[in-house]
Amino acid sequence: MVGPRSPRSLLTEPVEAAKPSDPKARLRGILEGAAKLIGAKGYEGTSIQDIADACGLTKAGLYHHIQSKEQLLLKIQDYGMDVFEESVLAQVQSIPDPLERLKACMEKNILLVTHGWSKEVTIILHEHATLTGEARTHINARKKRYVTFLERSFEEAIRMGDIRPLNPTVAAFAFLGMVLWIYKWYRPDGALSEDLIVREMQDLFFSGIEIPTRPPAPPRRPRAKALRPRATGPRKAKPTRLANSRRAKQRKR
Amino acid sequence: MVGPRSPRSLLTEPVEAAKPSDPKARLRGILEGAAKLIGAKGYEGTSIQDIADACGLTKAGLYHHIQSKEQLLLKIQDYGMDVFEESVLAQVQSIPDPLERLKACMEKNILLVTHGWSKEVTIILHEHATLTGEARTHINARKKRYVTFLERSFEEAIRMGDIRPLNPTVAAFAFLGMVLWIYKWYRPDGALSEDLIVREMQDLFFSGIEIPTRPPAPPRRPRAKALRPRATGPRKAKPTRLANSRRAKQRKR
Repeated sequence: MVGPRSPRSLLTEPVEAAKPSDPKARLRGILEGAAKLIGAKGYEGTSIQDIADACGLTKAGLYHHIQSKEQLLLKIQDYGMDVFEESVLAQVQSIPDPLERLKACMEKNILLVTHGWSKEVTIILHEHATLTGEARTHINARKKRYVTFLERSFEEAIRMGDIRPLNPTVAAFAFLGMVLWIYKWYRPDGALSEDLIVREMQDLFFSGIEIPTRPPAPPRRPRAKALRPRATGPRKAKPTRLANSRRAKQRKR
Repeated sequence: MVGPRSPRSLLTEPVEAAKPSDPKARLRGILEGAAKLIGAKGYEGTSIQDIADACGLTKAGLYHHIQSKEQLLLKIQDYGMDVFEESVLAQVQSIPDPLERLKACMEKNILLVTHGWSKEVTIILHEHATLTGEARTHINARKKRYVTFLERSFEEAIRMGDIRPLNPTVAAFAFLGMVLWIYKWYRPDGALSEDLIVREMQDLFFSGIEIPTRPPAPPRRPRAKALRPRATGPRKAKPTRLANSRRAKQRKR
């Protein structure tokens, strides 16, 4: 999923600096320009001629890159999903521990939203319901893959004793809602830094579901017993063999 | 804020059943019809004539209720805020305990989203950025009041020792994101019931921040000491006089 460009460079490299001979960068420039225009004038209020004008192209030149206005909308959404997958999914999906994976995923996704990457593309990706038929099915399937990735990570974390039992689907959508809603309220010049948002949201979300790896040993209790607490419900610390090995790994790092 | 109609009846009463002589119900019907049309055709793609046709009115008849297309958009958003305030805010703001207030608020807000109240109005309220000038300022101020209500409730809950210290602004937006994102994924015929969503989301959100009112008394510790645990950090149980009186109240119910 990661191409020769790093996601960082993909996000920060100015489109203007791309060589005109680089067709991928050219297309990105068109998609971001079109997204801005659609954001300002609405999809129905934006003509192919408007987009061509904004991109410094003739209508024929624009049709070299896209076949129709609906295909342009699909390409903007696909581009949004590409950036998301490169900047978030590809960065975290190989993390073996599911809880660490979920926490890293929340961080990467929050930073993608707060880093000011094209807000217009994000809005079109999440708010535009104009796509129909196959195009809509295609984008929905890409979004669904992210939901499934989150659900499976929650399920795995429950199995490994990292988090207490919960409904993985509700957890996945709660995670997504918290993180994706940020584009609606975050202001780069506001009082809340992106690091603070990451820290607070990770804490809000995970502190209530994480099973502590080291149960607080009650005083005057022999150590051997403290490692095998009685089962008193899903919220009690219940270290498993896997959780212990994870802890051992973490200590080694 | 609560009018003579209960919010329940406002949500379930079919618009068609309203007497034509009831101008409020007539306006609601127009706003919901216009929202559906804008949802399907886009704001720019919907003309005043389209809306008049859909409502069975002449253009002049429609202009009796609204002055312009932008004013119609503002009225739809104001109507969305009215329903929200009657069904959520007015139902919970008099609850004295801030944590109970926040939990009830989450439940009412989730049910407003899942109960299938006009999704089109919700979408226009949260996704339409077409309003400008005073109209935009007005709607943003109404939305901001809800954020402030949540922030103050979190602050109060922290002061009362109901929840551990956290950033009230991030908590308010995390709460809103979890709850409002539901309109994007919830399907009434899906596998998740609205009661399950309420329960799971309340648990996800509050179990990690709530300070247990009854700290688990370690064995062999005298009872008097168990009620005054050492201060070992914000996540430790720290019952206050207020929290204790709340507990006593709850036991009486």
